[in-house]
Amino acid sequence: MIPQPRVVRLALLGYGTVGQALVRLVASQRERLRDDAGLDLVFSVIANRRIEAKPTRDVPAGARLTDDLAAAATATDVDLVVELVGGLEPAGTLVRAALEAGKPVVTANKLLLAERGAELAALAAEKGVGIGLEASVAGGIPILRALRESFASDRVLALSGIVNGTCNYILTRMDEDRTLDYGKALAEAQAWGYAEADPTADVEGLDAASKLVLLSRMAFGQEATLAAVSREGITRLLPYDFLYAEKLDRRLRLLATGRRIATANGDHLSLSVRTHLVPKSSFLGKIEGPLNAVQVTCEAAGDFVFTGKGAGGDATAMSVLADVIALARTSGTTSGDGSGSRGSATAPPFGFARLAPLALAGPEEFRAPFYLRFVVDDAPGILAAISQALAAHRINIDAVFQIPWKEKKALPFVITLEETTLAALEPALEAIRALPFHVEPPLALPMTS
Amino acid sequence: MIPQPRVVRLALLGYGTVGQALVRLVASQRERLRDDAGLDLVFSVIANRRIEAKPTRDVPAGARLTDDLAAAATATDVDLVVELVGGLEPAGTLVRAALEAGKPVVTANKLLLAERGAELAALAAEKGVGIGLEASVAGGIPILRALRESFASDRVLALSGIVNGTCNYILTRMDEDRTLDYGKALAEAQAWGYAEADPTADVEGLDAASKLVLLSRMAFGQEATLAAVSREGITRLLPYDFLYAEKLDRRLRLLATGRRIATANGDHLSLSVRTHLVPKSSFLGKIEGPLNAVQVTCEAAGDFVFTGKGAGGDATAMSVLADVIALARTSGTTSGDGSGSRGSATAPPFGFARLAPLALAGPEEFRAPFYLRFVVDDAPGILAAISQALAAHRINIDAVFQIPWKEKKALPFVITLEETTLAALEPALEAIRALPFHVEPPLALPMTS
Repeated sequence: MIPQPRVVRLALLGYGTVGQALVRLVASQRERLRDDAGLDLVFSVIANRRIEAKPTRDVPAGARLTDDLAAAATATDVDLVVELVGGLEPAGTLVRAALEAGKPVVTANKLLLAERGAELAALAAEKGVGIGLEASVAGGIPILRALRESFASDRVLALSGIVNGTCNYILTRMDEDRTLDYGKALAEAQAWGYAEADPTADVEGLDAASKLVLLSRMAFGQEATLAAVSREGITRLLPYDFLYAEKLDRRLRLLATGRRIATANGDHLSLSVRTHLVPKSSFLGKIEGPLNAVQVTCEAAGDFVFTGKGAGGDATAMSVLADVIALARTSGTTSGDGSGSRGSATAPPFGFARLAPLALAGPEEFRAPFYLRFVVDDAPGILAAISQALAAHRINIDAVFQIPWKEKKALPFVITLEETTLAALEPALEAIRALPFHVEPPLALPMTS
Repeated sequence: MIPQPRVVRLALLGYGTVGQALVRLVASQRERLRDDAGLDLVFSVIANRRIEAKPTRDVPAGARLTDDLAAAATATDVDLVVELVGGLEPAGTLVRAALEAGKPVVTANKLLLAERGAELAALAAEKGVGIGLEASVAGGIPILRALRESFASDRVLALSGIVNGTCNYILTRMDEDRTLDYGKALAEAQAWGYAEADPTADVEGLDAASKLVLLSRMAFGQEATLAAVSREGITRLLPYDFLYAEKLDRRLRLLATGRRIATANGDHLSLSVRTHLVPKSSFLGKIEGPLNAVQVTCEAAGDFVFTGKGAGGDATAMSVLADVIALARTSGTTSGDGSGSRGSATAPPFGFARLAPLALAGPEEFRAPFYLRFVVDDAPGILAAISQALAAHRINIDAVFQIPWKEKKALPFVITLEETTLAALEPALEAIRALPFHVEPPLALPMTS
């Protein structure tokens, strides 16, 4: 006896790239999901501002098209709402309205979740409905579900992710072709659709920081916030950096990292988004182009790495649909009588019954060996001046690298430092930046083992 | 308001390495889980044959120790049963009894699940309780949950995994040290605790085949069986193979592979466990020592790779505990009144509402380029004889490799073949094996791109 599949009626808010990919994915998987998951997914309504301007080719028969997003979010013939509008508003109001109406919500909106996740999770808990947010981080990679469910049993000590495909594409291209400066690599990424017309949120690390906030809440159970993330983007990297990274057998990767630091007063969290030098042979060093990867270090079970497509309509739609299925398994109706959803018995959206207040680590707790890159107008005494500034802050030099270079007016070289703290390094760099010989501001990047 | 944590009372059947690691893990995480997951996990009973011979150091206060496994599986003061006995019996009877008594079961027993999973899943569904089986494949890597929940939304086209740490350790060591033959590498693995005293199930690929059966049911929704897996272990590999693999810029990896092959009569499944030559630069080529990795290829969202510790008490205990938490979220009681568990609203154990009958691909559907290794007593005409046998079966040679070698009485060389099928290759090999010059039987290994 095969039971009748349960009908689950969806509202889709936002009909852009991901929304259209979702509609196509549901169309291609619907028959399989009726058989395999026992669920029959139908779109009751698809809403977008100026919906009349959107392509109608893939719109399923029976779906209402509307530009009234608010009405769609609370429609009585809807069991579950998919929010793909993006941004803080009106998305936040729409998600609240849907939850208030007792409808589970699936969203890919990392910014909304990073800024207002706690409030929305509390509302969802009060209403006894679920929020699906897998698609908000690392596209198709099921990292949030892994943190929330699989790693719930162990203590996560650290996580480190390549979670912005735009940056990783640019870094990969600048490494492959050392004639590309940052501007040209960005233009190429834009031409290929890997970067937005306004790339700021990606290349300045804001997008990665939002994702880090969500990952950290799930991994560490503290109320991480965007403002707490120490952040530097990729815009200051020069072709020299890729040359010296190669010499050090390393690659440049923008990493979103979160780490527990045990202290006498409980765990502090170190949260940063910045370019690291990672070993070429490491898993993160192998992640090329627009791929994403997240490494999780657990107390008992060690390191895990997850890799896959981190963006694009198809990968994101797949995560959205997986959340729809998971939530639909605890809601929906066979009779289509609008009797609404039952409470979800799954993990809370951020994995923890409650999030502890954030205990943020200070710069004295961020420890790493560093790479310092200089471009100078060559003259005697430069190395002495830099060494002196470092020594004054008790920072040990590991090695000095200088690839032979003709242009003495803009001579690049690199100093690697033994492990030190940001608290020591920052004033040393301040002093060094004040020295008169720089052609480019000095750049400091942490190195991972 | 922090709600009172719900008490969930566990029976632990089997108190070996994993069981003891689980008890320690629960002890170390219990307080955190009360806060974070709102669950209070207590062991009501720990059962093992000859329990009196087991170390009592970690046994939690309040837990009964018994050698009556059957009584423990159905005790009234137990909400959830963890089965770590292993093997088909008595484990199968115990799991059935627990499910019959309406108790959710968490098990790491891949053999039991591979042989009797369908029956147990049906019983669990009938009783409205869950089965947790994440720990049965790839230790701490949450690959089954990913297939069941995250990839439920996409069509899995293929999966390929390094799921046996013993074999991967031996292959890694033989590659690092070309003076090690298989016997020495095995002895070393045994000395380090990476191989059992009787390594047959590991080195002959049976263990990997059980895991492939479970992975394939979740990935493809067909009733995969152990008997359907085409299987060859690692015992015939010689140090030469590692030398030639290096020359081909490849590594030897025992892969458990499942692949959908679209046909006019629906999808056929190709299921095999055998040593492949994978590119050194591929993800699977980077997996060293006892690590595990699984690569999943989805129709819409592309490739995903998951890596981490695949075995050992801690990694396995972590997966067991994650399943306990997930199931406990839908069962247990705050009052400890034994009122039992509620039905689970999560995905069925194998992800699919029902599994379709297996449609097994034939050897004519297994296509790959192959590596053929020969060790011969050198004489004129050998290459001509082999080439002729291949040509007779319409198999094209890609290249012939021979590293200069002094010992002409046992001369190794390698022929790589363009893509062909097992159906063509097997009779060709049959004919080649009958030729008189072999010092070792010829070895054929598929190569991946």
